[in-house]
Amino acid sequence: MDIVAAVEGSTAAIGYGLAAIGPGIGVGLVFAAYIQSTARQPESSRMTLPYVWIGFAVIEALALLGIAFGFIWQGNL
Amino acid sequence: MDIVAAVEGSTAAIGYGLAAIGPGIGVGLVFAAYIQSTARQPESSRMTLPYVWIGFAVIEALALLGIAFGFIWQGNL
Amino acid sequence: MDIVAAVEGSTAAIGYGLAAIGPGIGVGLVFAAYIQSTARQPESSRMTLPYVWIGFAVIEALALLGIAFGFIWQGNL
Amino acid sequence: MDIVAAVEGSTAAIGYGLAAIGPGIGVGLVFAAYIQSTARQPESSRMTLPYVWIGFAVIEALALLGIAFGFIWQGNL
Amino acid sequence: MDIVAAVEGSTAAIGYGLAAIGPGIGVGLVFAAYIQSTARQPESSRMTLPYVWIGFAVIEALALLGIAFGFIWQGNL
Repeated sequence: MDIVAAVEGSTAAIGYGLAAIGPGIGVGLVFAAYIQSTARQPESSRMTLPYVWIGFAVIEALALLGIAFGFIWQGNL
Repeated sequence: MDIVAAVEGSTAAIGYGLAAIGPGIGVGLVFAAYIQSTARQPESSRMTLPYVWIGFAVIEALALLGIAFGFIWQGNL
Repeated sequence: MDIVAAVEGSTAAIGYGLAAIGPGIGVGLVFAAYIQSTARQPESSRMTLPYVWIGFAVIEALALLGIAFGFIWQGNL
Repeated sequence: MDIVAAVEGSTAAIGYGLAAIGPGIGVGLVFAAYIQSTARQPESSRMTLPYVWIGFAVIEALALLGIAFGFIWQGNL
Repeated sequence: MDIVAAVEGSTAAIGYGLAAIGPGIGVGLVFAAYIQSTARQPESSRMTLPYVWIGFAVIEALALLGIAFGFIWQGNL
């Protein structure tokens, strides 16, 4: 046999995997803050809820960009 | 077989993936701080909101720079 | 097949990606601290604001240095 | 094809990138602590300020050493 | 093409980079704790200061060891 290394696949999978670490923690921080704040001041839950969704959206986007650019950098798009 | 390694793709995907870790956590910290602060002192929400957006912008820029320089260092730009 | 590895790109992209992790979290910590402090003691916001910008500048510089030295170590500069 | 690896660049870029992770977070912790402390006890701001700069200097040095030794280990110096 | 690998440099740079992550965060934690403690109990600042320097020294040594052993393992010393 001449196989030196049988690892196959794309670096895009590694890239997305890395890109999911930070947003995974960051979105968790946002929801954790909302849960604790609502538990202490229930009357604040309506005021802070929009920022949970905004924060979630802008952070989650970082991971989803990792999927999009994984395709782009492979030359498939 | 003569295949030594069938891994394909670009290092730019790995680079962006890494660059998304920090901002993912950092933006989460900013929004979490705003949610907790607004819940405790609702009257402060107008005073601190600009810094949520400034903080979000300068942190998210670090990840977006990773996309731009991924293309530049590949020689596509 | 004679393809040994089809991974292409530059280590500079990986280097910048790594260099963006810390500043992404660090700048988030600075802004989070300012938001929480201003919400609790609004009268302190003018006193601490300069340190937000100084902290932001010296931390963000670490990521931007990663861009500069990415070019330098590739021999493009 | 006879391409064995199309990845180019220097390990120094990866080395500096890694070396910048810790200081990015560490300097952020120091400035965040100063901002929060000054907001709570404004009269302490003069007493703790020297330690912000000392802490910043010794932590940032770790990242800057990564630049210096990146050149040294490449044989450019 | 006969390029086998265009990545150049030493693994010592990567090693030091990894070794600097922890101390960068750790020294930041020590100084942040001292700043916050001094702000709350100013009379404690003289009592806790030696431990700032001891903590700083033993943590920073971890990164500097990464430089020393980078040379040793390369066979330059």
